[in-house]
Amino acid sequence: MSLLIVGTVAFDAIETPFGSTDKILGGAATYITLSASQFLKSSNLVSVVGEDFPEEHIDLLKNHGSNVAGLQILEGKKTFFWHGRYNQDMNSRDTIETQLNVLGEFEPIVPEEFKNAEYLMLGNLMPSVQQKVLDQLHKRPKLVVLDTMNFWMDHFLDDLTVALKNVDVLTINDEEARQLSGEYSLVKAARAILKMGPKVLIIKKGEHGALLFNDKEVFFAPAMPLEDVFDPTGAGDTFAGGFIGYLAQTNDISFENMKRAIIYGSAMASFCVEKFGTERLHNLDPKELQLRVDAFKKLVHTEIPVI
Amino acid sequence: MSLLIVGTVAFDAIETPFGSTDKILGGAATYITLSASQFLKSSNLVSVVGEDFPEEHIDLLKNHGSNVAGLQILEGKKTFFWHGRYNQDMNSRDTIETQLNVLGEFEPIVPEEFKNAEYLMLGNLMPSVQQKVLDQLHKRPKLVVLDTMNFWMDHFLDDLTVALKNVDVLTINDEEARQLSGEYSLVKAARAILKMGPKVLIIKKGEHGALLFNDKEVFFAPAMPLEDVFDPTGAGDTFAGGFIGYLAQTNDISFENMKRAIIYGSAMASFCVEKFGTERLHNLDPKELQLRVDAFKKLVHTEIPVI
Repeated sequence: MSLLIVGTVAFDAIETPFGSTDKILGGAATYITLSASQFLKSSNLVSVVGEDFPEEHIDLLKNHGSNVAGLQILEGKKTFFWHGRYNQDMNSRDTIETQLNVLGEFEPIVPEEFKNAEYLMLGNLMPSVQQKVLDQLHKRPKLVVLDTMNFWMDHFLDDLTVALKNVDVLTINDEEARQLSGEYSLVKAARAILKMGPKVLIIKKGEHGALLFNDKEVFFAPAMPLEDVFDPTGAGDTFAGGFIGYLAQTNDISFENMKRAIIYGSAMASFCVEKFGTERLHNLDPKELQLRVDAFKKLVHTEIPVI
Repeated sequence: MSLLIVGTVAFDAIETPFGSTDKILGGAATYITLSASQFLKSSNLVSVVGEDFPEEHIDLLKNHGSNVAGLQILEGKKTFFWHGRYNQDMNSRDTIETQLNVLGEFEPIVPEEFKNAEYLMLGNLMPSVQQKVLDQLHKRPKLVVLDTMNFWMDHFLDDLTVALKNVDVLTINDEEARQLSGEYSLVKAARAILKMGPKVLIIKKGEHGALLFNDKEVFFAPAMPLEDVFDPTGAGDTFAGGFIGYLAQTNDISFENMKRAIIYGSAMASFCVEKFGTERLHNLDPKELQLRVDAFKKLVHTEIPVI
């Protein structure tokens, strides 16, 4: 099934306790595309970069099935750049520098050939930009997944509220769920957020796993306890890419299938953090993924006889 | 199978965002006893209180199958008292006041009839006191579970190190696992701690569930997402009581059975936090427990076909 991915394609400079990188390939849409490519032969990309963006990065995306017809390359402009530093615990990070560059004036243009998208992944971006993509489509996709963050809740809550009305699945972290709902209990937060538009809410808790809510049920996918986490950058986007990639591949948007999809998303994210940047996603063997998913099943599986 | 429970029996004053209590029944051994009573008709208690400790609290323990022959009542002395205040997020708390009282001079005396204990739960106490109980037994129990906390790591690490050599299962939280091992990764922390004596390590992560490690395997039990958490006091002890109660009831200390036991422990803990203090554990219907365990199974269960 056709998947349209919208989000940033960017440069990241990353510092962790294990080392640091210069400007490497980053961006939500990049991670989503690479992760989804594990499930789909092709996907369509709407994004923007500057003329400083190297051809080899575009080739990497193409080699992972990305149709880059919707990737604007703005002449005389520079690519979005983020420089962050993770703290010792790897759970929190400080932004050292953000250069919006091309992102400051991003007007998404959806190519004609993408306008019948069946699956739409709106990666973390200004909510009004996410909405502009939705507005250009010929028809409502079968599934719309939107990822966002606290920054947009702080400064563009009205725009976000509008976009949320058109969304099937919202993915945010636990703190953002609390902020958006004003509820501390995640069960209550989910109930409140599901009244804002989304039919399904995914609460990402990083190393503590992910919760999947609809208005009747809750499901939990653990995170894999890992020997080392080298670089958490992109883990949430990789999760989202695996989630929607699996759904599009199986073309089944039932809640039961979403349970499986968040396990595949969690498995993909568990690979992402094992190396710097996108590196671990470049040549991931499908057998490795299957073994990891088996490990996820085993992590929580036990037979409980009635006592 | 006979279960010996050692730990505090105490008064707690608790403040949460939902209300506060005056001196109510508390203490690790109290929660462990009440929780284990869901699985065992009887258990044996070694603890200490002052002459201010009301008969009705002792009756409550007796009514839950506790043999209180090892409960010292020190004349002219007062019962251990803890006064704590939970912060808005319910995940952190401040100690307002601690009155050690009888605990300051506690010399545990194991009654003759308890000295062949098959299951031993050493609740959180000074490590040398935990060791003194072990020293009085006629034979090594089939299973020894020890709970401890950061305070003993800070001030009595040598004593704790000695006690750990005699333990089968250690239960601590994630921060304590990091402190004890000097490793941030919980996988590495577990490996280091399993070299200190325990064959099995349980890392309690509160609202984020619990991890069970031996030297080959890891298993994860989620926490149940709850509508409201009224009072987290005693949740860890209730977890431990459910864990060892289930193991003693089934008399099976295999790792497979420990997986089931941490789900029962988690289920018991999920009840504990629904009301203040021990209240929710007083009259818990076995059917309620079974329904909660079923909900835990459902929370993580999905069939994943090979793709």
